[in-house]
Amino acid sequence: MDNFQLANIVISCPDQPGIVKTVTTFLYEHGANISLLEEHVEDGHFFMRVEWEKGNNFKDEESFMEAFKKLRQDFGMTVKVDFNERKKRLVLFCSKELHCLVDILGRHAIQELEVEIPCVISNSKEAAELVNKFGIPFYCVESSKNSLAHEEEMLKILENHPSDFIGLARYMKVLSANFVEQVQQKIINVHHSFLPSFVGAKPYEEAYERGVKLIGASSHYVTPELDQGPIIDQDVKRIKHSHEISKLKLLGREIEKQVFSFAIKKHIENKLIIYKNRTIVFE
Amino acid sequence: MDNFQLANIVISCPDQPGIVKTVTTFLYEHGANISLLEEHVEDGHFFMRVEWEKGNNFKDEESFMEAFKKLRQDFGMTVKVDFNERKKRLVLFCSKELHCLVDILGRHAIQELEVEIPCVISNSKEAAELVNKFGIPFYCVESSKNSLAHEEEMLKILENHPSDFIGLARYMKVLSANFVEQVQQKIINVHHSFLPSFVGAKPYEEAYERGVKLIGASSHYVTPELDQGPIIDQDVKRIKHSHEISKLKLLGREIEKQVFSFAIKKHIENKLIIYKNRTIVFE
Amino acid sequence: MDNFQLANIVISCPDQPGIVKTVTTFLYEHGANISLLEEHVEDGHFFMRVEWEKGNNFKDEESFMEAFKKLRQDFGMTVKVDFNERKKRLVLFCSKELHCLVDILGRHAIQELEVEIPCVISNSKEAAELVNKFGIPFYCVESSKNSLAHEEEMLKILENHPSDFIGLARYMKVLSANFVEQVQQKIINVHHSFLPSFVGAKPYEEAYERGVKLIGASSHYVTPELDQGPIIDQDVKRIKHSHEISKLKLLGREIEKQVFSFAIKKHIENKLIIYKNRTIVFE
Amino acid sequence: MDNFQLANIVISCPDQPGIVKTVTTFLYEHGANISLLEEHVEDGHFFMRVEWEKGNNFKDEESFMEAFKKLRQDFGMTVKVDFNERKKRLVLFCSKELHCLVDILGRHAIQELEVEIPCVISNSKEAAELVNKFGIPFYCVESSKNSLAHEEEMLKILENHPSDFIGLARYMKVLSANFVEQVQQKIINVHHSFLPSFVGAKPYEEAYERGVKLIGASSHYVTPELDQGPIIDQDVKRIKHSHEISKLKLLGREIEKQVFSFAIKKHIENKLIIYKNRTIVFE
Repeated sequence: MDNFQLANIVISCPDQPGIVKTVTTFLYEHGANISLLEEHVEDGHFFMRVEWEKGNNFKDEESFMEAFKKLRQDFGMTVKVDFNERKKRLVLFCSKELHCLVDILGRHAIQELEVEIPCVISNSKEAAELVNKFGIPFYCVESSKNSLAHEEEMLKILENHPSDFIGLARYMKVLSANFVEQVQQKIINVHHSFLPSFVGAKPYEEAYERGVKLIGASSHYVTPELDQGPIIDQDVKRIKHSHEISKLKLLGREIEKQVFSFAIKKHIENKLIIYKNRTIVFE
Repeated sequence: MDNFQLANIVISCPDQPGIVKTVTTFLYEHGANISLLEEHVEDGHFFMRVEWEKGNNFKDEESFMEAFKKLRQDFGMTVKVDFNERKKRLVLFCSKELHCLVDILGRHAIQELEVEIPCVISNSKEAAELVNKFGIPFYCVESSKNSLAHEEEMLKILENHPSDFIGLARYMKVLSANFVEQVQQKIINVHHSFLPSFVGAKPYEEAYERGVKLIGASSHYVTPELDQGPIIDQDVKRIKHSHEISKLKLLGREIEKQVFSFAIKKHIENKLIIYKNRTIVFE
Repeated sequence: MDNFQLANIVISCPDQPGIVKTVTTFLYEHGANISLLEEHVEDGHFFMRVEWEKGNNFKDEESFMEAFKKLRQDFGMTVKVDFNERKKRLVLFCSKELHCLVDILGRHAIQELEVEIPCVISNSKEAAELVNKFGIPFYCVESSKNSLAHEEEMLKILENHPSDFIGLARYMKVLSANFVEQVQQKIINVHHSFLPSFVGAKPYEEAYERGVKLIGASSHYVTPELDQGPIIDQDVKRIKHSHEISKLKLLGREIEKQVFSFAIKKHIENKLIIYKNRTIVFE
Repeated sequence: MDNFQLANIVISCPDQPGIVKTVTTFLYEHGANISLLEEHVEDGHFFMRVEWEKGNNFKDEESFMEAFKKLRQDFGMTVKVDFNERKKRLVLFCSKELHCLVDILGRHAIQELEVEIPCVISNSKEAAELVNKFGIPFYCVESSKNSLAHEEEMLKILENHPSDFIGLARYMKVLSANFVEQVQQKIINVHHSFLPSFVGAKPYEEAYERGVKLIGASSHYVTPELDQGPIIDQDVKRIKHSHEISKLKLLGREIEKQVFSFAIKKHIENKLIIYKNRTIVFE
């Protein structure tokens, strides 16, 4: 079924008897036909995602929240509702390595990702031609010594291109804690190592040096502290002693694309909850 | 090092003492600096791939073959030489599912694949817009009841767009044995199952039916017999009982792209030998 | 928590509103604290497994079934209840390849598998010494031309050693449809290929011949038709053209052990349902 | 072919023209039939492993080294020769978690590992009964506050049970740098994380805390610095947010056994070279 025919809510609250029953009864009584329900309990905390077919139940997110209000208050719930009223908007950041960028643009072009891309921002001109092919506005804000001015320019572009979340498609300049805090949207990064190993700018070089037998990549939400945010997905690939660093980088690209696009998809589908710097990833 | 600075040969002949020594001595005496040598012996048959830096050794493929002639005859060798004198040319076939196509076009656009794409041929209009974005000629030869006329039209397009090999990027019409035999180029297909399981048009449906716990995809050279050609690469993904067929298809796309692009790359790099309907895949 | 402090039921019935609510309410009202609930819906069919801590709720399986009777009839349920009142008993069959056998015996010896092994039956003397080390009765029923007599002898041994299920730890003689039907217990087999590829006695030879790039193994419930039963688990390992059949066999052993022990564990924990020749595997 | 019919040498020396030719010619002239040759070049350093069938060539390791002396000196080679004159002897250390221990004992019992096990040493009585089943001497040297006395007692046991290498089968007491340096044999450890992540005693707890999506295990040679030695093998397993630490531990056991037994096998077969704190692992 098309995602746009579905509505979903993600709930978290202190664990207590009767939550599932109460919520499903509420939906049932409003005529909503549940097509998917997942729950998770941890440390006395309850998490749930419910999906149902739109139709003769709630008009829109607002009217749902109004109807749900009492129940939400009774249980002390945090609720994120998503009626797929419009496509989410994703701004992409990139630098010179374009494999993650072209992977997302390609998935977008064949409607695999239900997302709009208002613009792409880079600190290098490298991607200009590629992004143009896809008819998407491209902004190059070249890195300068003055990070502050650099980031302010990016903030202005973000302001002019409203978006729901940001994807760092191998954007190779560290964003300041200040920038991360100022931006309202969630930011998803792909790091080219199996975190927490090898944070920083040279993970393949360090992986080679340490002599690991698998290389990896990780997608994660960005927090002010570099490469410390909640991990969304990770994967690895087997390597051999004969593989030089350049080969590790080539092999690693494939994993980077996988874990990055996975994270983007799950975020679009409202299937991620952050709890204690970890992620709950619904199916 | 850039591939275009390298030359390579792939050799096969009956196994006998002294082959490696003789070939490496020959290269050494002509001033060639070997950067990679791989060999394989099987059933009294010897296979080898040697790579060296171009420069002050052989002028081109022709002059190499001339110099190598005696040695080739002495050992009864089959030789495929590749001086990377120009980019190889790959014609892509597609139908309605475009994930493999966009993956190759994207890799091509960021120069990850050292290949030219003279044109894309499809039996559906679906891909027209996408292919246009990349500035590549697109031909739609809609399937008709008369397969013969259909294939003749494709043969004419192929004639007008000289190429070195063909990639079937989820082309969903079976090519006749006659077509396969007439086409001079090697054809690489991606089949959406873990061969030899589930040949034919509905592999995900059959995989679901049989209740397998992993789904797979396979890239292979095309032979007249459907899905029976030499396998180049395969991979799998774990699934669960709760995954419906539509989910299997989504998960499978990721594997299809991996094994298809891997095969294309290896073919470009002259790293594949077919022996007894199996492939030798050099590193 | 120790498995022996837990009770569980596995339910299947036609899908209809209110099943979850009714069952959880029933358990709640009898004082049972649910620690795990998993469900699955397919084709209008509903499946659920619920686990709770034993204690002040139901005395034993019998008293549970008595209390549950009405509810079971109302919904038309098939119910499998398991109060872990005693360890399940597993009879192992083996032949000359002992890696799966020793793997299970080892897991049993360190209490990883909560199971009793009343005896091991083989059609070869090979395993005698090994089984003796573990203090388990061993019976060698050598294969003879007369399969009937052979199987009758095994049936007698099974009668003298009551068991709950049977594991074929690379038992290399095909059991007759008659035997499979006569035996009351479920039989779990490990097949040394990625089913449905390469059924029969020589899968590694056939895998080599076909030139696959991954080899696999599958554990499945035995049905009268050879290697056609519901698959419980599968896994694969990457191979190379240089790997001879003997190497495939060595690599394959590791996968065989994994998928066989996985199946045994899940069966012990009452986490498997067969539906339409497929398995539902609870977490 | 049985390993005991094969001889092998592992060579390392500065890279220079003619090494392969000279060594293979030397073997050829002594009547040795090469069945496997692998090489690796790195940083101007050359590494090679050659395997041949024993027979009418060299009498034993000593006579080989005598004949090879001149060639070794000419190239400045380090040579490790192995004529498989007798089974290698492996002393195992363990603590309370016995899955790696029973895995090795089981492989040994069915002759999968061509090794002798002179004794098992533990800092806990846990394994006594298990080791006895296999008829292997067992020593319990309980940890005390005085590490020095503890390690001295172990050194004495090692002295009385000559061995070729030591395997730490989840031995959970840190060996002092002094002990590691005093012991002549190579020591192989299995660490229950994907190194370099989570060194130390609580890797699963830390992995859970960090919210990784794959857990791993690593086998490595022991050096005086904890968990910093050259990695031999690593593998990972996918986990989910619903998996508690106890579940991670259960899943991790399977990987620990794989990477530990792999390392033991490769060491037995003289297929490991340490170079710059990394390992070269021959096929």
